[in-house]
Amino acid sequence: MPHIALPEGLPGISAGFAFRPETAKPMRELAHLLLHEPNSLTPGERELIATYVSTRNDCYFCQTSHGAAAACHLGGNEIVEQVKTDPQSAPVTPKLKALLAIAGKVQQGGKQVTAGDIAAARAEGATDMEIHDTVLIAAAFCMYNRYVDGLGTWQPREESMYMGMGRQLAEHGYLKSSR
Amino acid sequence: MPHIALPEGLPGISAGFAFRPETAKPMRELAHLLLHEPNSLTPGERELIATYVSTRNDCYFCQTSHGAAAACHLGGNEIVEQVKTDPQSAPVTPKLKALLAIAGKVQQGGKQVTAGDIAAARAEGATDMEIHDTVLIAAAFCMYNRYVDGLGTWQPREESMYMGMGRQLAEHGYLKSSR
Repeated sequence: MPHIALPEGLPGISAGFAFRPETAKPMRELAHLLLHEPNSLTPGERELIATYVSTRNDCYFCQTSHGAAAACHLGGNEIVEQVKTDPQSAPVTPKLKALLAIAGKVQQGGKQVTAGDIAAARAEGATDMEIHDTVLIAAAFCMYNRYVDGLGTWQPREESMYMGMGRQLAEHGYLKSSR
Repeated sequence: MPHIALPEGLPGISAGFAFRPETAKPMRELAHLLLHEPNSLTPGERELIATYVSTRNDCYFCQTSHGAAAACHLGGNEIVEQVKTDPQSAPVTPKLKALLAIAGKVQQGGKQVTAGDIAAARAEGATDMEIHDTVLIAAAFCMYNRYVDGLGTWQPREESMYMGMGRQLAEHGYLKSSR
């Protein structure tokens, strides 16, 4: 049961968004910018970063919904599961592996990121903007994950619901409710 | 030295905001809503929550700037230092102590918040909206703190600069640059 009287029937973050539409607006805009708008990192790559961080934060709702969005962008769920389990052996580019390593550090704490992590990403061709957005995606999911779990939101376990949600997010982004 | 080529001479988060104005906009709006707009929790109380979480995340820039904003709202720095060190013995209301306990749990992870933490806050008169905003302030500072430190931003140690910044934030909020 949620910790506060959230609107019923809305899963995960959508219940918090409906409870407080004022804060939902900038939170949706930030996710849309980071994950959906044109960027030199593909939407699939950015959803993988979000999914990886959410998995490390043990947030079922976020890792499953963003994992579904990533699978939709990338044409299958296998790569998503590999990134969640062991990103360094997953079939992603060396640049994305280096960025996922930075994201994993940010998830632990901003000070964990070292000059060596940054140099490794640059050596694989990462730009300053890509490094910036990786840091911010990882930081932002440390917010979204804590918001979703800190409110004790309802997180149904029906995979089909998340597949529909992931498709909606992959196609239309984050500005409007997917339900 | 910052990890990426951030604009020079801008401390902490303002360098990230100047580097990527698109993401700065919703990040500023969220902080303004949570910390500055009218709310049944005073701005000083909300800045104390932000300062406490930033201290636990060991983010010098955020704990010092928001600590200065809290001190400006509350008429002195002593209460700020007490909340940073030991909130449960600080001279704040029992309700704020209960909300700070929730914020401390969210800082560790959303799932750390228990029904008992919520019941304790309700017993001291906290509303659902106050609990919601406490969870979100704590979650959001887990983002801001990681963004500031994950980019390796310049964080000068001149206290007078933070006092000026805190006054600016306390008086005008977060929508525009304080510099």
